[in-house]
Order: sequence, then structure tokens, then C-alpha cells
Amino acid sequence: MVGGTVTVLTDFGTGSRYAGEVRAVLCAPSPGLPVRVVELTHDVRRHDVRQGAAILRSVVGLFPPGTVHLAVVDPGVGTARRGVAVRSGGHLFVGPDNGLLLTAALALGDPEVREITHPDLRRPRVAATFWGRDVFAPCARWLALGFPFDWVGPPVPDPVALAEQPPRREPGRLSGEVVGRDPFGNLATNLPGDWLEGLPEVVVVRVGTREEVARRVRTYGEASVGDLVVLVGSDGLLEVAVREGDAAERLQAGPGSPLVLSFAP
Amino acid sequence: MVGGTVTVLTDFGTGSRYAGEVRAVLCAPSPGLPVRVVELTHDVRRHDVRQGAAILRSVVGLFPPGTVHLAVVDPGVGTARRGVAVRSGGHLFVGPDNGLLLTAALALGDPEVREITHPDLRRPRVAATFWGRDVFAPCARWLALGFPFDWVGPPVPDPVALAEQPPRREPGRLSGEVVGRDPFGNLATNLPGDWLEGLPEVVVVRVGTREEVARRVRTYGEASVGDLVVLVGSDGLLEVAVREGDAAERLQAGPGSPLVLSFAP
Amino acid sequence: MVGGTVTVLTDFGTGSRYAGEVRAVLCAPSPGLPVRVVELTHDVRRHDVRQGAAILRSVVGLFPPGTVHLAVVDPGVGTARRGVAVRSGGHLFVGPDNGLLLTAALALGDPEVREITHPDLRRPRVAATFWGRDVFAPCARWLALGFPFDWVGPPVPDPVALAEQPPRREPGRLSGEVVGRDPFGNLATNLPGDWLEGLPEVVVVRVGTREEVARRVRTYGEASVGDLVVLVGSDGLLEVAVREGDAAERLQAGPGSPLVLSFAP
Repeated sequence: MVGGTVTVLTDFGTGSRYAGEVRAVLCAPSPGLPVRVVELTHDVRRHDVRQGAAILRSVVGLFPPGTVHLAVVDPGVGTARRGVAVRSGGHLFVGPDNGLLLTAALALGDPEVREITHPDLRRPRVAATFWGRDVFAPCARWLALGFPFDWVGPPVPDPVALAEQPPRREPGRLSGEVVGRDPFGNLATNLPGDWLEGLPEVVVVRVGTREEVARRVRTYGEASVGDLVVLVGSDGLLEVAVREGDAAERLQAGPGSPLVLSFAP
Repeated sequence: MVGGTVTVLTDFGTGSRYAGEVRAVLCAPSPGLPVRVVELTHDVRRHDVRQGAAILRSVVGLFPPGTVHLAVVDPGVGTARRGVAVRSGGHLFVGPDNGLLLTAALALGDPEVREITHPDLRRPRVAATFWGRDVFAPCARWLALGFPFDWVGPPVPDPVALAEQPPRREPGRLSGEVVGRDPFGNLATNLPGDWLEGLPEVVVVRVGTREEVARRVRTYGEASVGDLVVLVGSDGLLEVAVREGDAAERLQAGPGSPLVLSFAP
Repeated sequence: MVGGTVTVLTDFGTGSRYAGEVRAVLCAPSPGLPVRVVELTHDVRRHDVRQGAAILRSVVGLFPPGTVHLAVVDPGVGTARRGVAVRSGGHLFVGPDNGLLLTAALALGDPEVREITHPDLRRPRVAATFWGRDVFAPCARWLALGFPFDWVGPPVPDPVALAEQPPRREPGRLSGEVVGRDPFGNLATNLPGDWLEGLPEVVVVRVGTREEVARRVRTYGEASVGDLVVLVGSDGLLEVAVREGDAAERLQAGPGSPLVLSFAP
């Protein structure tokens, strides 16, 4: 029997001792029961809050309500930025108040945000440079063990959220933004995958200042090598890719780039 | 108490979110009991089915019968290739029908192969590009929980197997092939380590078109720096290596290269 | 319920199959109960015993007495060096007798060291090149299950310890040595973080033959980009760093470098 599930997403590097230390705190055999730890990735690009937020949003649906998501991409560690816990759709999130958690939390419902101030939710000595180990991991562990969310600390009325181009659907035009870039240069967007169905076979993709013709396909296999394609990615969102190529480089785009798909309506 | 053990071998990259998503599906707290997950490696060379098959074969003996081995090196994802479950020697294997599983399964006994078609063995929505998460991981998890192998789907009479030069032992001559290459350039072969005993101290190694004299040693320490040596690798198979050097580069060889050792009989 | 906790620190590489094989042995479902495995890192610099020892010492305090620490950075594998188990402050350590374990064990108390000779504490066949999998992992697993420490093998009266410049505090002068270097080039020392309090705002740092003026700060944020600073690292030890720069490169220093801080007393 375990005391709950904690997922982990950081930019510490998979092999780094920092990832190991967070793991150590989460897996500590006491106090309370051990928790089940599912490490999503430690390889978010260093300090790329936007990429971390996009990954968190796309994987959160793999877990049931009650799961605690610990996420640490925290360029502001050691400054005055707050540490927060967030509850939304029955899921709990723990990390810095820099927008990392809010994207996923907003996708699940109407988030409640509290600052982490309860003195029991941190290790006895907090290193100014390592809140991941000394504040966020203990807090996540306690929440997984059933520590009441309302006791974490005072409500935060103005949590930091990442500015985002909301997805819009108009005749002949879909718009939104790039929210992720995978190791192959495929660009995930915030457009729902369902919207692909209404598209003709050929569309014009504009990302930032670049514009190119792309084909709507179901799998990479349908395109020729080098084709720019639009398809539904594995997270259910619309994706822009180049078969056996790098769409991010070709379009000079990445997380945060505004995106427009135009087509004959 | 856990519901069984699932090992994992992929080419997704250890730090990638794809590895994290497979982990998430395997570790899901429901339905049923959680399973014990042992990740072997996510760093098989991308699309190198042969290397994946060689690693799987060499580590499978570390686990008892009843273990489920999930393996995904799947260049054909999104095409018509089948997904299969394999039972052999009491072990179960789940992955694409491209030869990845068969090498290990054949080493354990006489494999039964079934196509994965049962509708309960996949996530509600299957991404064409991510069977690892949406088909293979759920199937492996269910098998570890006791889902009957015979219900997975219809038997596959003609599973894909990797062509392989079978190991042969003749007077003055051992032949077989290279089945693996580790990060240091050491070449694992499919020749049993026992065969080393019959060899003289000096042998001629031919791999592909290259031919060189090598020394039979017990450990690297017995050779001089730069020596080509033949020894028993940590997986019990005969290995060709260069002390503090790269045998794969020196012999221009890798998984699949035919290999002959000649010596005074 | 699990049979105990084993931490793991190696230089095998996080994604390597060697890390996976050690994991497999530790997680084996029998004999006995499974143990809880917490992997600290597999990315110690290859063969860097000193770095491994420094990391182990700095993280051991995250775990309660009773924890077993498996550590394998073992350039001498295949030679006559001993395999040992160490008990200190209620913690247990397993690995090669090359100093890797002693630094942490000495920090916890007065270590007892035993050579691993009991025949049950190894796999049936031991690969000369892979004691990590075949001797150290099984031994660590058995100790976590309650195998008596005294039965491991005979006491070792002369275990190998790393020579170290002990930390000293004199008027106007702190001396010791560099014990670690993180991926950003920050240098961890063996000087207790408390000693920072007595320092003036400006000190002279000498590492090896280099000498530079540094500022005492509490967080990186207090320094300007490019400043050499002295602060308390996340492991509670004094650290030398360059804000957004690489102190190790600038001072040409690394684990083992002697260090002196001079200041107006």
C-alpha cells in the first residue's frame, strides 16, 4: 500500500544528482507511508517554463484525480517569487508561481491557488537555491499523504499565468500558438486535434513571420520526405511537422510563437 | 503488494516525455493493482531493432518466469505492422512485430505469438504515432495483472524474426554474428562464452571484410592498451574488444556483421 | 510492504543497459520481499571516484538510518581490489574498496568495514567486468532484506580512503579542498557552510595556483554576472561559483584541488 501518487517534471537533467535528491525526499520511508513516484521527465529545456507547462498540460490526463504533480522549472529560485500549491479538477500541483502549473490547471477546471507557507511542509533547513528538494518535494509528498490542501497557506488571488494566444476557429482560419517542440522539431500547438477534420487537404501555415503550404495527413507515412504537414499529435493537439525533418528550424518557431492556419473555407 | 513486474526497453530517450508517458500508463493506480516497473533502458539507438533485440535477449535471464517485457523500437509505427504479445519459457513480451521480441523469446523456448486485437487492451484513443503509450503499455500492464494471454488476439503464424547467422563450432573455426555494440565500442556476439575455453591464446578474428589477430583474455586488465581481445562479456556471450579503444570502429562492424574466429585446431 | 531501501549511485550512464541490469537485480521479485530502490544518479563522471564520494556524502543525510547505499564507480573492476560492505551511523554501504564509500561513512561516524565473501551474496555466475550487477547489487539487496552485516565477510582493517585536505579554520584563513563540481562548474568544498558567517564581504580565494577576489553572498541573485562568489551550497557546504559562469574552468580546479580562503581577520 502506498500513500498516493506524485508525478515529477523538472529541468534538472535526468542523470543529475538534483533529480536524485528530489527522488530521495519523495521516496523517504517516513514520516507516513511512502508515495508512488512517477517521473515524467527531468529534461525540460533549462529554464523553459513554457515548454514545461506545455508538457504538463499534455500528460496530466494520463492520471486520475487525486494525483499530485510536482513541477520545478524555476529560473527565479532564490528571489522573491512564491511557491504555490494548486488544486483543479481534483488534481493537485506543486511548484513555483511562474505560470508552470497554471496552464495544466486551467485545462482541468477552475484552479484554487495557495502559497506554501505552512512550516511543516518544508525540510528543516531550506537551501535558497534548491526549493525543489527543500520545499516543493516535501509539500508534494505531504499532499499525497492526505495533508489538507486548505492548510498549505493563504489563497493567492493573482497567480502568475503564461500569456497565451487562445485557440480560435473562424471560417477559413484557425489561430492559436505553438506550445511545445519535441526533440525532432515537431511543433505542438494549442489547437484541438478535432479541428483537423474540417480542414481541406492543403492549408497555409503561418508561424511568426514565416508562411508555407502544408498538407493535412493522418500519419507521417502519408507524406513525402521533407513535406510540411499538419496532423494530430500523440497528445490530441494539432501538430506541425516535417517528415524526417525539423519543422521548428524550418519555420524558425518554438513555444510561444503565434500560429495561423488559413484555407479555403 | 503489486500486480506483477513489467520491464521496459525503448528508443525514446531516457529523459524524454515519451518515456515518462509510458511510465505513467504502466504506473496508473487503476484499474487493478499497480504493477512493478523495471526500466531496462530507453536509450536503444533510435530505430535500431537489432540492438534492442540483442539487449533484450541478454537481460531477460535476470528475471523470473511470469515477468512481462515491454519493448518498443518501432520504426514502422503508423504503418500496417502488427502489434504482438509473445509467450515463451513462461515470460511474456509485448511490442511491435518486427523481430524485436523474437530473439529473446526464441532463446527461452518455443514462442507463441498473438496479435493484440482485444479492445480492452488499449487506451480509449490510440494515437497513430504512439502505440507504445496507447497499445503496448496498456497491454503489458494488463498481462502483468493476469489478463489471459490467449485472449489477447488471434495467433500469428508468421511472426517477423531477425535473420541471424546461427552460432557454429567447427574444428579450428567458430562463426556467428555481432549482436550488440556497447557505448565503448565493444562488440557482443551470439557465440556462447563457454566456447572461449577451447581457444588457443591467439586467434584470427574476421568481421565483415576486416581480419585481425586477437588475444584470448579473461579480463581487459590482461591486455595491453590497444590490443584486440576476445573475452566473455558480462552477458555470458563472447565479446570482441579493444583495451581502451573502440573495436566497432576499428573493425568497421556492428550488430548484424558476420563473424568468424579461426585458430589452430 | 517492502523489505528496505537501497539507494544507487554509479558511473554507468543513466540510459545505459548496465544501469538497467543493476535495477533488475535490485528489483527482482524473489527471493524475499522486493526492496525500494532510489536511484541517486548514474552519471558520476566515468571512473571519478572522488566525485562519486563527494555526492554520496552530501546526499546521505536525506535518508534515515537503516538505508543501504549501493555505489559503484570502479575503475579497478576485474583486478584484485576488494568488494566491501561498510556500516556507519546505522547506514550501510556496498561497493568497491577504493575510497568511494568511506568519505560518506566517515562523515556519519566510525565505520566498520567487511569484505564481501559470503557465497550467498553474489549471483551464481560473476562476470569479472560487472561486479556492480553480480556482487554489489545482490549484496545490497540482501542487506536491505535484513541479512546480518557481520556475516558479509571478514573485517577489513585497512580500507582504502581518499586522501583529503581536512577543513581548517584559523584567524584570517579557512583551508580545505574542492570535493565536487556540478554541471554548471560550481565548486563544492569540504568547508562547513556555517563558516561563511564569520567572513567579511570580500575574501581572497586560492585554488591550486590561481588566486582571485570573491564576494560572500547568500544567493546568486546578489552578485553581478561574472562575479566570483562564495556561498553556502544546497548541501550545506561552502561553495565557490561564478554567477552565470563556470568557476571550475576559471580557476582551473576540480575535486581534489586544495583551497584557501584568506581575509582580514
